[in-house]
Amino acid sequence: MSHPTPTSQPGPSGQPFEITVGNVTRPLRLVPVGQMGFVPLIEFLGDSELTRAAAQALLPLIPEGSEALLTVVTNALPLAHELSDLSGLPYEVARKKRRTYMQAPLIQEVPGLTLGVSETLWLDGPHAARLSGKKVVIVQDVIASGTTAAALARLVERSGGTVHGYLAAFKQGNSPLPVRYLQELPGRV
Amino acid sequence: MSHPTPTSQPGPSGQPFEITVGNVTRPLRLVPVGQMGFVPLIEFLGDSELTRAAAQALLPLIPEGSEALLTVVTNALPLAHELSDLSGLPYEVARKKRRTYMQAPLIQEVPGLTLGVSETLWLDGPHAARLSGKKVVIVQDVIASGTTAAALARLVERSGGTVHGYLAAFKQGNSPLPVRYLQELPGRV
Repeated sequence: MSHPTPTSQPGPSGQPFEITVGNVTRPLRLVPVGQMGFVPLIEFLGDSELTRAAAQALLPLIPEGSEALLTVVTNALPLAHELSDLSGLPYEVARKKRRTYMQAPLIQEVPGLTLGVSETLWLDGPHAARLSGKKVVIVQDVIASGTTAAALARLVERSGGTVHGYLAAFKQGNSPLPVRYLQELPGRV
Repeated sequence: MSHPTPTSQPGPSGQPFEITVGNVTRPLRLVPVGQMGFVPLIEFLGDSELTRAAAQALLPLIPEGSEALLTVVTNALPLAHELSDLSGLPYEVARKKRRTYMQAPLIQEVPGLTLGVSETLWLDGPHAARLSGKKVVIVQDVIASGTTAAALARLVERSGGTVHGYLAAFKQGNSPLPVRYLQELPGRV
C-alpha cells in the first residue's frame, strides 16, 4: 500500500508521529482539537494491513469464554469484522443513526463531554437478540474517556448479555474501565 | 454464528427470503419501502462469514490490472476491507459526513431519486491522493440505481485516477453501469 515514509519523531501538526503494530508501521496525522493541541489520528478505514495486524495482536487478549463481540461504527468496524473472522466469534454493530429498517432497536445515550451534547447509539432488535445470554466483549479502535464503551456495555446488559471485557487497539487517557489494549497513545501532543 | 434457520420460500414482510454465497446461506429480512412493497435487506455488518464468502466470490471478478478499490460507508465497508485483504489491493473509503480532521476533502453530490433530496460523499484529501494515477474499482454491497456508484466514479476521476470497473455483491434493478456482481436481487417482492 502507498503510504508516506514514516520517520521517528513526534511533532506538531503536519509532522509525523508513528505507530507500529506487528510488522506494520504507520505515520499518524496529528489533528487539532480545539485550541489546545493535537491528537494522533488512527485510521483503520482504508488500511487492511494495519487492521489485520491489530486484529491479530488483539486475538490473544480476548478473554477466555467470550461468546460474542460488540462494536460501534465506523472506524472500529473493519477491526471488529477481522477479529470476528480470526476468532470465529460473532460480532454485532451499534449504529449512530436510526435506520428505517430497524425493528424495536435499543436506544442508548452516550453522555457528551460538553454539557447538553450527547450521542445516541442504536442497536437493531434482531441484533440485540443475538447477544442475549452471551458473554460479550466490547471492541473499539480507541478507548479514551470510556463513555462510548460504557454505553456499549449498557447495550449488552439491556440485550440480556453480560459484559465479559473491553478490548481496544489503543488507549488514550485515563478511562476507569478495565481495558485490554495494544498500545497507549498520547491524549494530546 | 447464531442465525435463524433459513427456509426456501420468499414471501411478504416477516417471511424468509434467502441467499446463498459460497457455502453460506442466510435468510434475509424483508423491509418495507414506502407503501409499495418490500426489499430484501443484505447485512454485512455483524456477519463476518457472509462477508468473507462474498469477498472470496468477488475476488476473481476484480478486473485484471486493477490497482485500488474505492467504497463508501457503511454496509460495504467490511466487504471492501476483506476484498483488500484477500486481493492485496489498497482500498479507500468515501464518507457520508464531513469529519473535522479531513484535509481538502473532495465533496461529491449523489442526486436523489426524490426531487431536492440528495446525499453528499466526502473523500479525505490524503485518501484521494492515493487514488491518483491508479486504475480503481468501485466496490459496493448492492448496486441498485447506480447513482452512488456514479458519484464514486466521479470521485475517482477527480482524484486523478481512472475507473477500471464496478463490483457489487448484489445487483438490484436496472443500473446502466457495467457492474460485475454475484447475484441479482429482486427490487421489490
